[in-house]
Amino acid sequence: MRGSMRALAKLTRVRRRTLAGTSSSHRFQSNTSGSKSFQGVWPIVATPFHDDEALDLEGFAKSIRFFRECGASGATVCGVLGESNRLTDAERAQLVETAVGAAGAMPICVGVSHAGTRATVDLAQMAQDLGAHSVMVTPTKEAFPQSDAQLFDYFAAVQDGCALPIVLQDHPASTGVFMGAELLVQICAHLASVQCIKLEAVPTPPKIAALRKAWAAQPPAFPECSILTGLGALYGGFDVEQGTDGFMTGFAFPEVLMAIDGAARAGNVERAHAIYAQFLPLLVFEQQPGVGIRKEVYRLRGLIECGRVRRPAPQVSTVAAAALAAQIERSLYDPFPGVDLTKPLTPLFERLSRS
Amino acid sequence: MRGSMRALAKLTRVRRRTLAGTSSSHRFQSNTSGSKSFQGVWPIVATPFHDDEALDLEGFAKSIRFFRECGASGATVCGVLGESNRLTDAERAQLVETAVGAAGAMPICVGVSHAGTRATVDLAQMAQDLGAHSVMVTPTKEAFPQSDAQLFDYFAAVQDGCALPIVLQDHPASTGVFMGAELLVQICAHLASVQCIKLEAVPTPPKIAALRKAWAAQPPAFPECSILTGLGALYGGFDVEQGTDGFMTGFAFPEVLMAIDGAARAGNVERAHAIYAQFLPLLVFEQQPGVGIRKEVYRLRGLIECGRVRRPAPQVSTVAAAALAAQIERSLYDPFPGVDLTKPLTPLFERLSRS
Amino acid sequence: MRGSMRALAKLTRVRRRTLAGTSSSHRFQSNTSGSKSFQGVWPIVATPFHDDEALDLEGFAKSIRFFRECGASGATVCGVLGESNRLTDAERAQLVETAVGAAGAMPICVGVSHAGTRATVDLAQMAQDLGAHSVMVTPTKEAFPQSDAQLFDYFAAVQDGCALPIVLQDHPASTGVFMGAELLVQICAHLASVQCIKLEAVPTPPKIAALRKAWAAQPPAFPECSILTGLGALYGGFDVEQGTDGFMTGFAFPEVLMAIDGAARAGNVERAHAIYAQFLPLLVFEQQPGVGIRKEVYRLRGLIECGRVRRPAPQVSTVAAAALAAQIERSLYDPFPGVDLTKPLTPLFERLSRS
Amino acid sequence: MRGSMRALAKLTRVRRRTLAGTSSSHRFQSNTSGSKSFQGVWPIVATPFHDDEALDLEGFAKSIRFFRECGASGATVCGVLGESNRLTDAERAQLVETAVGAAGAMPICVGVSHAGTRATVDLAQMAQDLGAHSVMVTPTKEAFPQSDAQLFDYFAAVQDGCALPIVLQDHPASTGVFMGAELLVQICAHLASVQCIKLEAVPTPPKIAALRKAWAAQPPAFPECSILTGLGALYGGFDVEQGTDGFMTGFAFPEVLMAIDGAARAGNVERAHAIYAQFLPLLVFEQQPGVGIRKEVYRLRGLIECGRVRRPAPQVSTVAAAALAAQIERSLYDPFPGVDLTKPLTPLFERLSRS
Repeated sequence: MRGSMRALAKLTRVRRRTLAGTSSSHRFQSNTSGSKSFQGVWPIVATPFHDDEALDLEGFAKSIRFFRECGASGATVCGVLGESNRLTDAERAQLVETAVGAAGAMPICVGVSHAGTRATVDLAQMAQDLGAHSVMVTPTKEAFPQSDAQLFDYFAAVQDGCALPIVLQDHPASTGVFMGAELLVQICAHLASVQCIKLEAVPTPPKIAALRKAWAAQPPAFPECSILTGLGALYGGFDVEQGTDGFMTGFAFPEVLMAIDGAARAGNVERAHAIYAQFLPLLVFEQQPGVGIRKEVYRLRGLIECGRVRRPAPQVSTVAAAALAAQIERSLYDPFPGVDLTKPLTPLFERLSRS
Repeated sequence: MRGSMRALAKLTRVRRRTLAGTSSSHRFQSNTSGSKSFQGVWPIVATPFHDDEALDLEGFAKSIRFFRECGASGATVCGVLGESNRLTDAERAQLVETAVGAAGAMPICVGVSHAGTRATVDLAQMAQDLGAHSVMVTPTKEAFPQSDAQLFDYFAAVQDGCALPIVLQDHPASTGVFMGAELLVQICAHLASVQCIKLEAVPTPPKIAALRKAWAAQPPAFPECSILTGLGALYGGFDVEQGTDGFMTGFAFPEVLMAIDGAARAGNVERAHAIYAQFLPLLVFEQQPGVGIRKEVYRLRGLIECGRVRRPAPQVSTVAAAALAAQIERSLYDPFPGVDLTKPLTPLFERLSRS
Repeated sequence: MRGSMRALAKLTRVRRRTLAGTSSSHRFQSNTSGSKSFQGVWPIVATPFHDDEALDLEGFAKSIRFFRECGASGATVCGVLGESNRLTDAERAQLVETAVGAAGAMPICVGVSHAGTRATVDLAQMAQDLGAHSVMVTPTKEAFPQSDAQLFDYFAAVQDGCALPIVLQDHPASTGVFMGAELLVQICAHLASVQCIKLEAVPTPPKIAALRKAWAAQPPAFPECSILTGLGALYGGFDVEQGTDGFMTGFAFPEVLMAIDGAARAGNVERAHAIYAQFLPLLVFEQQPGVGIRKEVYRLRGLIECGRVRRPAPQVSTVAAAALAAQIERSLYDPFPGVDLTKPLTPLFERLSRS
Repeated sequence: MRGSMRALAKLTRVRRRTLAGTSSSHRFQSNTSGSKSFQGVWPIVATPFHDDEALDLEGFAKSIRFFRECGASGATVCGVLGESNRLTDAERAQLVETAVGAAGAMPICVGVSHAGTRATVDLAQMAQDLGAHSVMVTPTKEAFPQSDAQLFDYFAAVQDGCALPIVLQDHPASTGVFMGAELLVQICAHLASVQCIKLEAVPTPPKIAALRKAWAAQPPAFPECSILTGLGALYGGFDVEQGTDGFMTGFAFPEVLMAIDGAARAGNVERAHAIYAQFLPLLVFEQQPGVGIRKEVYRLRGLIECGRVRRPAPQVSTVAAAALAAQIERSLYDPFPGVDLTKPLTPLFERLSRS
């Protein structure tokens, strides 16, 4: 397997190269400080709909601006949480345009995965044309097995067709594609655009450890990727413990994740664990299947007016909505009386992070 | 279950109605002779690509014209065989436009199934705007079960949003959705637009029989749907035996299917079986997984210049191509010396049907 | 659907009847106090193996005795956590015999689900012959859809062939079978043996609520089933909130679940939530895929000497083992200095429950 | 991947060795003529049940004897067609014992695949103890991906635990496990017991060609495996064309497959194709999902009295039974008036093979 991938790598003549020659289309400066561009908290943004399931672009822009105010490192649109599988291409374009317009200096990453390699490239080019910072790409479910060489080729094709940095999403539960740490290391080594792994292959902590170990064994000049974990940060404390660079996930209180990440970045893993533990009931509740729960949080936070989920997916149940409200009471109102959900909680959590 | 569907039917106020009020957008006359509009052979058309995977619209138009010359009753584009899951929406539009332009009087059915109900309606409206005759719709694979009421609602939403006749595709192998005969009968009874069932739920013969029986038990005015079977006509002889109205499938020698259908229509089921048996090795060979085999037949028939399949799907293997050529030798050249594949074989098969 | 099930119910002449006539084989008294027999905490017991993957019956007996000492209401063997899919029938028999022998007055429930209805009945009879208290049954994954009537028939067949109470396991993630609340209500209404639903269909809280509501609408004499939730108690606080009767799951500190359940039973749902929140990081960690983590807890608690998991399933990783130890430190040693994991923590948690 | 497998191969010290040291338990002579032991036609035998789903061992023995009279090279029991997933271990033992007793000199291969490696070995040992000739083994569906090294290990474990030859079943449609030709070659090279590949990975013809090519490139002493194809011989003509050694499948007229195989063995591939084509409608009909159709053929051939299929699988439909009878009329009675299905058709087909 490894042999055939090496052959393939030669064939497609992909080399670890700076993206300098292609960077004119980038809206963002490459980092010169050596700090990674993918770190911190990147919320995956829900796509709001009106009651008739039409796009609510105003609510979408409001959500983007809100996450920027919260201090998010970036935001990702058209992901699974964004119901991207229920969008037409034209709607995707509107969403990217709106997001980029609302984001200001905050970078926007765009989910562009598609069952066809060429269509993925097309969507990536569209994201680039519309001013996105980066694209998120995952292999898709196929009826046949995809070899390591084919998976490599998939990401190489996106790199060849689009100048933006690539976030490689590793989510076997939805794709049926299992990518070993060895393959991920090879992809990062040979494809300069792949700058971040969005790790959602359970159990995540050992896989973070395996990637860190493999990267540490490489020569010093080896350009290590970022790792951002997802899965609603269900394993956030344990991910931080193994050295995740942050979170890219849909939890609708990104301020909590920023507090966890901030503590870890300050070298205080146990502090990160404590914050994680404190908000874990909310994290667990929110990561239940169904985007409806997250949209209800958006609604409670004043970002959108309607929590409509596109059919045939189910709407949030009244039982779930009531239980969510009760849990917010326990997790937020009780410890922080008078807290206003419609404002960024960041100041609150900044205090928390320092304590 | 039945109760909730009935309630739903009331709720959405779907009624068995003529499509008269909405027919202005139809390019085709409603049949006045009582004959069904969906019968005979409707080839599913492959989407040809150039070597770089760009659309080959010329080859596509040529294929459409060829099937029309063969005497096909209609043609279906953007189906699974058409690699529709690897197309962007813009490419779909180009394909529909090209097909309608090349088809002349032959009706064009367009596959519009999408994971989102609303996006399915959007694609259906696009097909209508571009002059299609009808749309083919199947529920899509979801992570959650879809109740009979939800499935009904899905087709009702397409009817409400698009004036074209609907071909309901029943293909659980790809969708994971099993629709019982009872549900199909209810859908046909309450949704006037659903005028054809593309039956691909194995085993197909008993399901055809079940539908025929259920429909026969209805009041005389009950508007029976058509049944067209697919699956590469693998069970063609047995489908005909149970009363299929024809075939809607990708077998690249539709003339063979027309001969089978013609014999059946003439009341000679055993004659249909004999033709089916005669060409069965070719039918079996072609329905193997992978669209590459069918594209190779297109190439051999002079319709396209390049058999390229979009990645990550595999290309046709040299072994398969050679075996295909050998089978065409056995099935066509041997019994019909001097036959020219690049010409419609219809005259040949018309003789066959009569003999 | 409902109609056909009703017909079926008549056909198989299943009636809501007391199990009096068949109770001679029961080792346990039917409750006369009106309290349900399935409530409280029923740990699912892991199956320990020696290093060569042979059964470690001594460790198994020790685990059973330990859970009894902890005050568990019962224990379930040969479940998914027990790696039942990797056992021969002879090994199952040894395990049931050992469990019943070690359990004393504590009832033993035995997982007997099998791809064949008749084989399920055979395994259930074996459990009965060996002195089990009850059997746990779930439909299995099939290539074809199973109608509500077929699912009803499956449980009816077990009732007809075995006199023990049945715990109906509802776990679509592993079975692919989705059973609506309406079907569950019908099964409970017509099959007296079905006395407990092991609810693991996410999201669990709304389904508990739906069942409670349906049962409340029945006539007073209607024999309501118990609901025990599983899934490693990941949603334990929320399940308790909707009225679960307890837990049947593999979390290896059942004392924690007993504390949650105890608080709920005392009418203090918020107290239950607080205990749930306090131990949630441990609950989250343990429910990660792979039985190896739970076996490592068994090892740390002194119940087994070897955490071996049967191939081809993976062993616990060193990273996971280290992270587990660290989390136990946080969750147990830190708040309760000097705690001895090898002793039941029940006294500790009893204090907790009261506080 | 290849590296880790090599390491593993060393680790488990598997060597290409004769089975001499372990052959005492073999009931059959190793071939000295250089001819392969797995060639020709090995029917997969259905497991007959009485109306109450109890084993019909008499019908089973009768079927085995019948296939022996037909001249089958061997017979395989407890396969998928044998509803092995619905059998208890005790029933498997009864079936193996009965088969071996009825088979006389005809070798019996036993399906022993189990979700647990150790349980597979246990079942294999049981087969060996009961006098089987060989065992059929396939990896099973798991929730996690199985690496090439793990798959190799699985077959190595069976070789280490059981002295019988192994038939490796490659059937990704049911197992979800895709084994590349390269892996199969490595397994055959390092595990002497693996003497046959039952190839059912579509498309089969290119995979046969790939294996033949890989084996041809090996040193002369390389012990090439047999290839027997399955899938109801749906692609039989094309398999023969690429050099299959025969068929191991459940088609209930093995005489037809023997005729195809005989023609191929005589070097007349086109003759093989012609026989294949002649009986293809019957082959296509029989390979439809559902073992009920095959049991109906058994019934028509006088082998069993009851075609009962174990629940929850469906019984054969009356429509299918009638269509089957009609197809037998077309395929057998019409061309061979007076043919007696309850007698081996071999004499008939021997004539065919010669003509």
